[in-house]
Amino acid sequence: MKPLSQKMLDMKASSVRKLTKYADEAEKQGKKIYKLNIGQPDLHVPEEYYERIRGFHEPTVEYMPSQGIPQLLEAVESYYKSVGIDVDRNHIYITTGGTEAIMFTLLALTNPGDEFLTFEPYYSNYNTFFTMTGATPVAVTTYVEDGFHVKREAIEAKITDKTKAIFVTNPGNPTGTVLREDEIRMIADVAKEHDLYIICDEVYREMVFGGVNVTSFGYLEDIHDRLIIVDSVSKRYNACGARIGVLISKNDEVLELISKLCQGRLAVSTIEQFGAVGLYSTGFRVIHQIRDEFEKRRDVVFESLKRIPGVFCEKPEGAFYLICKLPVEDANDFLIWMLQEFDDQGETVMAAPADGFYATEGLGRDEIRIAYVLEPEKLVRAIEILGKGLEAYQNR
Amino acid sequence: MKPLSQKMLDMKASSVRKLTKYADEAEKQGKKIYKLNIGQPDLHVPEEYYERIRGFHEPTVEYMPSQGIPQLLEAVESYYKSVGIDVDRNHIYITTGGTEAIMFTLLALTNPGDEFLTFEPYYSNYNTFFTMTGATPVAVTTYVEDGFHVKREAIEAKITDKTKAIFVTNPGNPTGTVLREDEIRMIADVAKEHDLYIICDEVYREMVFGGVNVTSFGYLEDIHDRLIIVDSVSKRYNACGARIGVLISKNDEVLELISKLCQGRLAVSTIEQFGAVGLYSTGFRVIHQIRDEFEKRRDVVFESLKRIPGVFCEKPEGAFYLICKLPVEDANDFLIWMLQEFDDQGETVMAAPADGFYATEGLGRDEIRIAYVLEPEKLVRAIEILGKGLEAYQNR
Repeated sequence: MKPLSQKMLDMKASSVRKLTKYADEAEKQGKKIYKLNIGQPDLHVPEEYYERIRGFHEPTVEYMPSQGIPQLLEAVESYYKSVGIDVDRNHIYITTGGTEAIMFTLLALTNPGDEFLTFEPYYSNYNTFFTMTGATPVAVTTYVEDGFHVKREAIEAKITDKTKAIFVTNPGNPTGTVLREDEIRMIADVAKEHDLYIICDEVYREMVFGGVNVTSFGYLEDIHDRLIIVDSVSKRYNACGARIGVLISKNDEVLELISKLCQGRLAVSTIEQFGAVGLYSTGFRVIHQIRDEFEKRRDVVFESLKRIPGVFCEKPEGAFYLICKLPVEDANDFLIWMLQEFDDQGETVMAAPADGFYATEGLGRDEIRIAYVLEPEKLVRAIEILGKGLEAYQNR
Repeated sequence: MKPLSQKMLDMKASSVRKLTKYADEAEKQGKKIYKLNIGQPDLHVPEEYYERIRGFHEPTVEYMPSQGIPQLLEAVESYYKSVGIDVDRNHIYITTGGTEAIMFTLLALTNPGDEFLTFEPYYSNYNTFFTMTGATPVAVTTYVEDGFHVKREAIEAKITDKTKAIFVTNPGNPTGTVLREDEIRMIADVAKEHDLYIICDEVYREMVFGGVNVTSFGYLEDIHDRLIIVDSVSKRYNACGARIGVLISKNDEVLELISKLCQGRLAVSTIEQFGAVGLYSTGFRVIHQIRDEFEKRRDVVFESLKRIPGVFCEKPEGAFYLICKLPVEDANDFLIWMLQEFDDQGETVMAAPADGFYATEGLGRDEIRIAYVLEPEKLVRAIEILGKGLEAYQNR
């Protein structure tokens, strides 16, 4: 048989699901596993989602307009206006999850050889879309010691005449870092100076804790022609499975290409779009519930981690992730050992090895990502088990 | 600003929606338009879809497994077994519409320069996916005079050492042609001889009229390692807006790449997958209702067209499309004229110009595609208007 796509063959599998087979094995042996590896929120979707879903009962389930249904475009426009970002419905395209918005953005921007600056550690699934579209990611390293904040020199050191865009996730996955206003401004200035686009994935926008300011590139009027915002209902409303995303741009040329791509795939799920109208109708009620709950969890996890000797992380400011350094050489080996060899009263913990979030080989080998998507008391127990596991691992 | 993706800029917009602006204008002027341009069925979705949708009420709308939910994989497996195609759930991936299945297939197969044989006229949206993935389409022309059936010599004349796959739509969109068993066998033999993959888009599988045999590449056991089947609930159950597609392969290497791609985009809509389980639960009740209704319409349209002087087409055997030759030089001009200048008692007709379905420049200029997705009496009236329009156009 003729060879399949070499670039797809070369692509690494997702690091967040990498340990799944060991977890399955451990569960078969009867172990209980606290799963901190996947960003799947456990909170409830608002009832308004189901109300709209059940209210839809057209005789035929037709293709909707490829841009999205008018009601949802209007809801997204209103939401943006309510957070003070001036967006018109003409600037909005509804996508199948934030993932499709990312894919279409990269397709619209990329010519062969184009480089996209990303801040490592970054969400490893982006690599799928870089590979699919032929975009070349160029990693700007950020460090656990700096709370994964970014520096102008580090960005500029990576800019070449091939650089096409800066790709930012804010608040950050896997870091939980929230960029400060001055960082946002600095990145925007660099983009202007070097004529770069900015792609910002802001799906965790309001998940920002301790009175830290919500920041968004959307507030900067002077870069609107070079900005593409990726957004989604997944995390904001506990509706990951709805697969409703949003792409926003004020660049007409970009929008024209996005429109072509949206027409090619015809439409987004009809009923999910109506469900999403219900989600947006909740205003800030659900958004703030979620933020407050995850703030509680962030505090619990951070305080618990601090008590474990040799574990280091800065206090994360947003999303529901953190990356911490462990007193081990190889976090992959440790996490597998936790699933295969360790338990505390029949219970163990699974997290994501952080090296999969770094593009640079060798970085993050002693770090893990924790998604704190369990109730506070379970998180306390999970981190306790992690601590006991670390001790036992070191004393093997 | 730096230039956007050149290949996306060069990509033509969809030909089925090309005349939309003229139609909008005509409607503003108060004209009633019979729309035969888009393959959006008007029949009812079975109630079982809504039952499953309403039966889903989990507290959190989580990401489902990236392959698809077990219940739907099982339903698809049962459906395939019931049509006599031996498929196991491990061979099945649920996708967001047939479109995603096509995109992922091309991504999995394509190395730079790889050529994909397609039978023109073909569904023009494929071009979006060829462009996105860098696959090079190579058109094998088929002709209205042959009822758009295919010939071995025509295929072999286009095979080079770059040829990677043969891409077949059966039953055909935009042609309505159903490949005979001997054609399917011949294409399979050519694929084996030249070591090619076969991608078959069989979303209209059972929409086959007049006792003509349902044909599928899935029946040929000897090519299972080189076959990828694209399928969908859209047309089979009048559920285009559900965006539930299916990709099937028995080639483990192909499946591994498909799995990576599915993991990258995380999951398909949760609730739509449950809805689709409801669709498949209807067995052949809905499938045969749809077939019988479209057979009636096919007869009505074909008989009506035959009465118009200078119009030519072979009787189509399936799907709900046909391509016919008109006694005009430029069907685009004629169709725009129909929207802008013509009406019969305030009514006119819109169809899709067929040249957009041909890859070869200049072909199909005097042809249109008709999607007969209206009730029989409306179709009679629409074709009557088309005939009157043609007469008036010729006598301008």
